[in-house]
Amino acid sequence: MKSTLECVPCYLKQVISTAKEATNRKELQFQALQAAAKVIGKLSLEKSPAENTYYVLKAAQKVLMDDDPFNKKKLKYNKIALKMYPRLKKIIKKSDKPLYTAVKVALAGNIIDMGILPSFDIEKTLKETLSSPLTIDDFDRFSQDLKKSSNILYLGDNIGEIVFDKVLVEELLPKNVFFAVKNGPILNDATLEDAHLVKMDEVAKVITTGTDMLGAPLKQCSEEFQDIFLSADLIISKGQANYETLSEVKANIYFLLKAKCEVIAKDLGIKCGDTVFKRAAIT
Amino acid sequence: MKSTLECVPCYLKQVISTAKEATNRKELQFQALQAAAKVIGKLSLEKSPAENTYYVLKAAQKVLMDDDPFNKKKLKYNKIALKMYPRLKKIIKKSDKPLYTAVKVALAGNIIDMGILPSFDIEKTLKETLSSPLTIDDFDRFSQDLKKSSNILYLGDNIGEIVFDKVLVEELLPKNVFFAVKNGPILNDATLEDAHLVKMDEVAKVITTGTDMLGAPLKQCSEEFQDIFLSADLIISKGQANYETLSEVKANIYFLLKAKCEVIAKDLGIKCGDTVFKRAAIT
Repeated sequence: MKSTLECVPCYLKQVISTAKEATNRKELQFQALQAAAKVIGKLSLEKSPAENTYYVLKAAQKVLMDDDPFNKKKLKYNKIALKMYPRLKKIIKKSDKPLYTAVKVALAGNIIDMGILPSFDIEKTLKETLSSPLTIDDFDRFSQDLKKSSNILYLGDNIGEIVFDKVLVEELLPKNVFFAVKNGPILNDATLEDAHLVKMDEVAKVITTGTDMLGAPLKQCSEEFQDIFLSADLIISKGQANYETLSEVKANIYFLLKAKCEVIAKDLGIKCGDTVFKRAAIT
Repeated sequence: MKSTLECVPCYLKQVISTAKEATNRKELQFQALQAAAKVIGKLSLEKSPAENTYYVLKAAQKVLMDDDPFNKKKLKYNKIALKMYPRLKKIIKKSDKPLYTAVKVALAGNIIDMGILPSFDIEKTLKETLSSPLTIDDFDRFSQDLKKSSNILYLGDNIGEIVFDKVLVEELLPKNVFFAVKNGPILNDATLEDAHLVKMDEVAKVITTGTDMLGAPLKQCSEEFQDIFLSADLIISKGQANYETLSEVKANIYFLLKAKCEVIAKDLGIKCGDTVFKRAAIT
């Protein structure tokens, strides 16, 4: 999808989050924001919000002299999520529809912001997600598609969240699953290090997109990733940035996410806060 | 008050509103936003949000080649508000505490966004404001102060809203009231033209701040305005921009507003959405 005017202030909001992670020095935070604002002059609304955000963030990180500001949080968030893993597995085991429940668990991972919520609220959000219907629910089609699929590509999103993704990946077995993370740190996106920490490599072939760009902008991804993408029978795409970069790609993609802003919601024809498991428009 | 990092994306949000008022051409809107973003590099967090917003807006308006993008809306909003005037007067007439009710009517004018609300919602907001307590309420002190005051300066805010202000001004009579508007168009702030349209000049001496800057940044205001400001026994300051530019000024100011963002709310020690009629900390 393309960017809108309304995306631009949001690029700067993400710079502010990043700057605050990197340093407590107000002046340096503001200098990073100023450097990021300068990049806006070079952006195009034809690019996805994820892509534009990336360039803006990189300019800020240069000033902050920190290429992984969220590093300190990563271990913490992954650990919080890992602690929940046995509980998530129990939910699947008890479920009448384990695959559908696993999809919802993975969605809950996209909804829960471990940086904000205390543990009792994580539990509450999990329960709410499991009991609420999805606004767009292409699960039946997914379930049929899955039967015919051998190679599955799962596009991961954030740290912590990937533990919830692992639960869904396990329900896809014994299919051949590739789990893609970023090739380097950007925001709180999962990297190889995080995938190994949560032992994703025990259930899937962990790969990277070949880039540290947000989402999976195919032209900027490695050839290896592009090959896996093109040969996958079915792709599960988690979160907004993956949607932003792939919404116009003709492939058998199922987008699993909560719409966290008006722009994405409008693009999906839903409301902000709504949840989707939506098959891409292939033709 | 000073700006925070969080104010910066908000400057751009106001540019987006302005650009959309000025033109339907997406490309031109984005060019204006880019020009505005360029100015962020020259801003200082030591300045108030109102002041920074002004410089950013001016850069955008230069690209839009429109020095009054909200012009088309002005007549419409003033007319909507004028239509309510007899109803507002009736509320005051029926009230046991007409002055206090007039303060709340003026506050309602700050809460109602005539660009968004249909008429039945304007009525609903008015009723809610009249029946709800203020989060900070220095009315008793104001009432005492008023008895000792001869010269009152009332700092106006937006078009439409000034009709609600007029109701309060009328309750201050026969005191000598100066009603200040901007010296030129900026956002949807009231100017001399609007003050005359709502016949404010029949109840107050209408003056301008001597500048088109948002709020009332004293150093940038005219000498005439500064003299009136300094000699006023009591000042009523409407809305956020006036608060932003005067919150650190030692004068007998009563700030009347709804906190519409987290930054202002924090500065006032309240929550976003809360309402105040607060006397400035003079000493």
